[in-house]
Amino acid sequence: MRKKIAIIDLGSNSVRMIIMKIYEDGSYKMMDQAKEMVRLSEDMGAEMTLKPLAIKRTLFTLKLFKKLIEAHKADEIFAIATAAVRNAINQQAFLEKIKLETGFDFQVISGEEEAYLDYMGVMNTIKIEDCIIVDIGGGSTELVWVENRRMREAVSLPFGAVTLTERFLGKENYTSERIKKLVDYIRNQYKGIKWLEQVKGLPVVGLGGSIRTLAKIDKRKIGFPLESLHNYQMEYREVIYAYDLVTKTSIESRKDIPGVEKERADIIAGGVVPVKALMDFLKADKIIISGNGLREGLFFKYYLDFLGYPDEILEDVLYHSVDNTLKNYDVNVEHCLHVTKLALSIFDQLTPLHGLGEAERKLLFVGAQLHDIGMYVDYYNHHKHGFYLALNSRLNGLRNRELVMCAFIVAMHRNEEFKVDWKNYNMLMDKNDYEIIRRLSIFVRIAEKLDRNESGSVENISCYIMPDSVQMMLKTSNTPELEIAAAMKSDKLFEKLFHKKLYIV
Amino acid sequence: MRKKIAIIDLGSNSVRMIIMKIYEDGSYKMMDQAKEMVRLSEDMGAEMTLKPLAIKRTLFTLKLFKKLIEAHKADEIFAIATAAVRNAINQQAFLEKIKLETGFDFQVISGEEEAYLDYMGVMNTIKIEDCIIVDIGGGSTELVWVENRRMREAVSLPFGAVTLTERFLGKENYTSERIKKLVDYIRNQYKGIKWLEQVKGLPVVGLGGSIRTLAKIDKRKIGFPLESLHNYQMEYREVIYAYDLVTKTSIESRKDIPGVEKERADIIAGGVVPVKALMDFLKADKIIISGNGLREGLFFKYYLDFLGYPDEILEDVLYHSVDNTLKNYDVNVEHCLHVTKLALSIFDQLTPLHGLGEAERKLLFVGAQLHDIGMYVDYYNHHKHGFYLALNSRLNGLRNRELVMCAFIVAMHRNEEFKVDWKNYNMLMDKNDYEIIRRLSIFVRIAEKLDRNESGSVENISCYIMPDSVQMMLKTSNTPELEIAAAMKSDKLFEKLFHKKLYIV
Repeated sequence: MRKKIAIIDLGSNSVRMIIMKIYEDGSYKMMDQAKEMVRLSEDMGAEMTLKPLAIKRTLFTLKLFKKLIEAHKADEIFAIATAAVRNAINQQAFLEKIKLETGFDFQVISGEEEAYLDYMGVMNTIKIEDCIIVDIGGGSTELVWVENRRMREAVSLPFGAVTLTERFLGKENYTSERIKKLVDYIRNQYKGIKWLEQVKGLPVVGLGGSIRTLAKIDKRKIGFPLESLHNYQMEYREVIYAYDLVTKTSIESRKDIPGVEKERADIIAGGVVPVKALMDFLKADKIIISGNGLREGLFFKYYLDFLGYPDEILEDVLYHSVDNTLKNYDVNVEHCLHVTKLALSIFDQLTPLHGLGEAERKLLFVGAQLHDIGMYVDYYNHHKHGFYLALNSRLNGLRNRELVMCAFIVAMHRNEEFKVDWKNYNMLMDKNDYEIIRRLSIFVRIAEKLDRNESGSVENISCYIMPDSVQMMLKTSNTPELEIAAAMKSDKLFEKLFHKKLYIV
Repeated sequence: MRKKIAIIDLGSNSVRMIIMKIYEDGSYKMMDQAKEMVRLSEDMGAEMTLKPLAIKRTLFTLKLFKKLIEAHKADEIFAIATAAVRNAINQQAFLEKIKLETGFDFQVISGEEEAYLDYMGVMNTIKIEDCIIVDIGGGSTELVWVENRRMREAVSLPFGAVTLTERFLGKENYTSERIKKLVDYIRNQYKGIKWLEQVKGLPVVGLGGSIRTLAKIDKRKIGFPLESLHNYQMEYREVIYAYDLVTKTSIESRKDIPGVEKERADIIAGGVVPVKALMDFLKADKIIISGNGLREGLFFKYYLDFLGYPDEILEDVLYHSVDNTLKNYDVNVEHCLHVTKLALSIFDQLTPLHGLGEAERKLLFVGAQLHDIGMYVDYYNHHKHGFYLALNSRLNGLRNRELVMCAFIVAMHRNEEFKVDWKNYNMLMDKNDYEIIRRLSIFVRIAEKLDRNESGSVENISCYIMPDSVQMMLKTSNTPELEIAAAMKSDKLFEKLFHKKLYIV
C-alpha cells in the first residue's frame, strides 16, 4: 500500500513539481519539490501561440523533472497544465511534443477545475468556514466562494501576473497612469462576477507566487519568527505597504526588495494589483496566505480517493495533521491518546480554577498529542526537540499564535527545565499567553506521569476542588504509587499557578 | 525483520531500561528509556544480603517497566543484573521472586562480562583506537584496556559509588581524612592490577552516572552549546574543579550544585573519587565521557549478531552512524551518495587551492551525506532543519567541534541564506574553522546542483586550476545546461573564497 506520486503543474510563469510519499500506515510526507520559472506564456501575444523559446525552456525543465521522478521511483505521475496551454492555439502540437520527448501525459484542466483544486488545497490545510479564495497565477486568476467549507461558486478569469504585465505595464518603470488603467480593468472584471457582490467582508485566502511574495516582504520587514508561509496573515495596511514597494519602485531596485525573487521582479506588480483590487472590492481587512494550492489540492483529491473518501474534504484539518505528524514521528500513539484523555479530563474538571475555554482546550489537545514527537530525534531532551519539530512540522488548522503555544506545551511537558527566549515569539502572543501555556502544560505533565508505564493503567481521574487544595482521585488497575510520586513532583508548580495544594490519591 | 527489543540493566544504584527498534532496512532507533534509582544494594552490609525495602522498591519499578514493555509490544527482553545481585547471598530467592512477579528472567553477569558490554557500548559509538575504559557503577568498577580497538585486558573491582560511600564516607560531611583513606584504598586496588602499569598516558573513557555528573557540572559551568553528553571531553583541571565541588561541599549544599541530581547527591563523592584516582594513577590529562555503556553494548552485540556479524564491532563508527541517520530520515540515499562522490572529487582535485587535508575531507564526507536530512521535517528550509537534526542526532565518531562543522556544512548547502549565531559555537571551534566550513560547503553546493535531477547524470568532474580561474569539465549522459546554470550561481562566492573565477563546461 506504500505509494509515491509525482504531481506536476505547468503554469504560465512556472512549472512546479512535488513528490509525495504515502506510507503503509496512511501517513504521508513531501519527499521533494522542484520549480523552474520557464515563463511558458512569454510573448504569446494576441494570436495565442506558445513560442519556440518558451517551449524549449519548458521541455528542458520537464526532462529534468522526469529524471527526478525516475530517481524517486514514483509509482504515479499526475501532470496538469493550466492557462498558457489551455489558451494556446498550438496546444495539441505542444502536448504531443512533450509526450514524445518526456512521456508525460499532460491533462489540460479548465479554469473551474483549477479553482476546485485550489479549493481542495486550501480547505484541507486551513481551518476556515467561509472565505473567498483567490489564486493569481501567471495567466489566469481563480476565485472561489467557500461557504460552510463547501465550494459555492467558482470562476476563472483570463488574466494573471504575466499577461497583465505584458498588456498593461511593460518593461519600463510604471507610471501611476498605467497602474490606474490596470486597476480599472480588473475592477471591471470583478464587477462582472455577480456573486462577488454578495460576499463583501469575507476573509480572503490568497494563493500563488505573487501573493506569497507579499507575505515574504512583510515577514522580512517585521522579522517574523516562524519559517512557514502557510497560514500567514496580513492586515490590509500591511498589504498596502508591500504593494507600494513593488509598484512604485523602479524595475532595477525592485529586484533588491527583501523577499522578492529576482526572476519574479519583472511581473510582481502585475500579480499584486489584482490582490489589492480584490481586497478593495470586497472591503476585506485581511488576507490569509496559503502555501498550499493546486498541487496539494490534487494530492488531497488523490489521497482521499485512495483512502476511500472520493469527493470529500478532511472533516477536521487540525486533527488530521496532528495524526499525520504523530505517524511521521513514529510515536507510541496509544500512550499519546491516553495522556491526552487524562489531561483533557483534568482540564475539564478544573475549569472553575483556571477559567479557560474551548480555544485553550484545543491547544491542550494538540500539545498533549504531540508531547513525545521529539523522541524521533533523540530520547534525551526530547521536549526540546519536540518544540522544534512542532514549530516546523506541517501542523495545519492552527493560527500561528496557537502553533507557538502548542510547541511550548510540548517543550514544557517534562520536569526538565526548558530555557527559551520567549521574546522571539512576543510578536505572536499576548501577555497572558505565557500564563496560559504554564497552566496547560502542567496538565500534560501530570497526565504524562500518571501514564508513565504507557499502558493506560490509570484509567480515570476525579478532581475535587477544595478550599485550599485540589484532590485528584485515580481509578486504576494497579497501585499507582510510582505514578503518583512522579506526578506529585509538579506539586510546587501547581500551587504556584493555582494557589492550591495538590493531592493525588 | 522488524524487531523491538527491551534491555534492562539492574545495578546497585539504579535500574535502567532502553527500548530499541530495528527497522526493516536495518536502521535502528531508541524508542523509549526509563530509569529509577532503586538503590538495590542499600544496607547490604558485610553479610551481603539484599534487604526487604530495597527489594520492594526494585520489584515495584520492574513491574512498571514490564507495563512499559507491554505497551511497546517488544519482541524480546534482555534483563541483566550486575554487582548487587552478583554478590548477594539471597540472589536466588530474589531472582525467583522477580520471575514470579514480573516474568523477567534476569541473567546475572560476571564483572568481566560487564566490562565486555561496556567495551561494546563504547567502541561502537566512539572513534578511538587505544584507551582505558572505566565504568563506575553503584557496586562495582570495571576497567578495560583497549588496544587497536580490541579488548586486551579487563577487570572488575568490587566497589562502586554506593559501596564506597557506605564504607568510607557515611552520611555526614566528609573530612579530608576520610577522603584520604578512600583514595588510599582505591590506589591500592589499582596497584594490584598489573597491566594498569603499562598503560600510563592513554586517554580515559568514562562511563556511569557519577562520571556523567562530572560532565554535567562542567557543561553547566561553561555553558556548553550542545545537548548530548556522549563524547564530551574534560581536561584534568576541569575534573578537579567538579571533584572539589562535590567532595568539599556539605551534604546539604551538594544537592544544589548545578548538574547534580538530587537522588545522587549522597553518593556522588564515592563515585568521583575513583575517577580522579585513576586519572592520577595513569597520569591521564583528559577524560572522554561516553553516554553509551552496558545497555548499548548489549544492544550492539544483539544487533551485530542479528545482521550476521557475531562477536564483531563496527568497522567504522562514523560511517555506520551516518548511514543509520540517513535511513532514519528517509532520504534519497543514492542522491546523497552521488553528491558526496562529486563533492569529494572536487575537493581532491582542488587540493592545491584549498590546502585542506584528510581531517577536513572527512567533514565534507559527512556534510555531503547528510545534506538533505532536514527534508524529513519539511522541504522548505530543509537546510535549517538539517542543521538542527545533524547537531542533535546520534552521530558518533566525530569530535564535538567536527560535529558542529558538519552541521554548518549541511546548513550552507543551499543558496538560501542561513543566519546563525556563530558565537554560540565559538567555544568549540577555532577561528579558522569558519573559513574551512565556507570552503567545504561550497563544494557540496556545487555538487548538489550538478545532481539536481538526483539521477547521477553528471558522472564525473575534471577540475583544472588555471592562473585566474578554475575550470570544471563535466562528463555527463545528457546536456547539463540547467545543472551548470544552477551550479554557476555559486560563482561569486567561489571567487570570493578562492580568488579565482569559476567556469563549468
